[in-house]
Amino acid sequence: MKFSLTILGSSSGVPTASRNTTAHVLNVHERFFLIDCGEGTQIQFRKYRIRFGRVHQIFISHLHSDHILGLFGYLATQTLIGRKKEIDVFGPPDLERFVRNHFSLFPESLLLPVKFHPLDLSGPARIFEDKAVEVTSFPVNHRVPTWGFVFTEKLKGRNYTNLKPRSYAFCTDTLFEPSLASVFEGCDLLYHEATYGHKELSRATATYHSTAKQAAEMAKLANARQLVLGHFSARYKDTTPLLEEAREIFPNTIEATDGLTIDVSFP
Amino acid sequence: MKFSLTILGSSSGVPTASRNTTAHVLNVHERFFLIDCGEGTQIQFRKYRIRFGRVHQIFISHLHSDHILGLFGYLATQTLIGRKKEIDVFGPPDLERFVRNHFSLFPESLLLPVKFHPLDLSGPARIFEDKAVEVTSFPVNHRVPTWGFVFTEKLKGRNYTNLKPRSYAFCTDTLFEPSLASVFEGCDLLYHEATYGHKELSRATATYHSTAKQAAEMAKLANARQLVLGHFSARYKDTTPLLEEAREIFPNTIEATDGLTIDVSFP
Repeated sequence: MKFSLTILGSSSGVPTASRNTTAHVLNVHERFFLIDCGEGTQIQFRKYRIRFGRVHQIFISHLHSDHILGLFGYLATQTLIGRKKEIDVFGPPDLERFVRNHFSLFPESLLLPVKFHPLDLSGPARIFEDKAVEVTSFPVNHRVPTWGFVFTEKLKGRNYTNLKPRSYAFCTDTLFEPSLASVFEGCDLLYHEATYGHKELSRATATYHSTAKQAAEMAKLANARQLVLGHFSARYKDTTPLLEEAREIFPNTIEATDGLTIDVSFP
Repeated sequence: MKFSLTILGSSSGVPTASRNTTAHVLNVHERFFLIDCGEGTQIQFRKYRIRFGRVHQIFISHLHSDHILGLFGYLATQTLIGRKKEIDVFGPPDLERFVRNHFSLFPESLLLPVKFHPLDLSGPARIFEDKAVEVTSFPVNHRVPTWGFVFTEKLKGRNYTNLKPRSYAFCTDTLFEPSLASVFEGCDLLYHEATYGHKELSRATATYHSTAKQAAEMAKLANARQLVLGHFSARYKDTTPLLEEAREIFPNTIEATDGLTIDVSFP
């Protein structure tokens, strides 16, 4: 019963030689979910040997380049390789117009059916459910409308009656927002942006981002089991100081690196 | 007096784990020119340590995804890192509308000045000239309007009176078009697409692409000094057979690989 997260991109606005922009793949019982789709995501799929055909749902947090530029190539390639199966895309209300507008220049490039589901800015909302998982979106606090997501597995059958379903919360890009902790209270894995170290708090605040220390405070407030930091500013050649400042507050913290897979076990 | 080509992407429509989609950087006397801009081009710049700030002219062959999807991130990143200097973009007439339309959703992402120069479909045309180089565009024969480019260095001063200026011809995506040979007659380096091996001639013709054998025939017809094959279909895990079929016709043939730099010496 897999519940694992693979990081495809761990940089913030600007990719580096070793960190692509944001994209995550969550495997819940061999169902794969793509979360954000920065430039080069389709190349990361090839590199880390994840099959496009296994992803039927995509979740987009917000309309900034570093979270969506890979969507065009990701979809175009699947048309080229002959995909026919529908893809659900959950994202900001403007996303559909934006994507369709792009492909209006390349009608031959988007022959696969894509169904867009606009997210709700009024508060947390259950947006998707299948046999393996249920997904909740929640608004966060960034310069443009932005959402986080909680993925919670569904366990059925008497073998699982004593187990607590595992959950993954994805929380980027946002100001430190203590009120969010209740949305992902007790989650097994929390991914929280740590664009800056806490020395750069004023810069983080001015750009509606968080520091590594604040990410750790969120993990603590939410009673998360494990925290993974990411969305690092390209200014940090070495992210060890960010990891260390987070661990002072929340010891079970790791850092995202491209290609990292985190297997979430039952507690 | 550098005259060298760096391949940033050597795949065709679909990138693979080892080959990005099309992008080339030509260095003429330390002036850098970007030719096509497939997805992930900005990441390749970082990986191969080419500075964005050295490129002031971009040449786009045609409006297919695998030649332009990297342009959005390439330009957005330069705004983010504070570039102010104008960039010239030479490309299909629809390119400006397409790019501006994209950035209309992200006005903050394109603050650097970009000047678009529409290419001429009626025949070869001198489109750019500076102290180091002159550039000619020429229409080729693809499914949508598509252009190739010839870059010829300018040599001034008495140290160079006995030298023949070096030239680079970029020719993709196109059907085998013998009449083009005169446009880049005697070029020092010819990049010609070889999407397929000659066994796939009918597929190449149906999709308005060339085979490796045809690329070699072009090099021979044009009396090129060296041929570099690229734009390989992702079906070829091993491109050796394509290289071998080209070398039977034109022995001085090499294959493009991502990160390859070809230094063109004087004859």
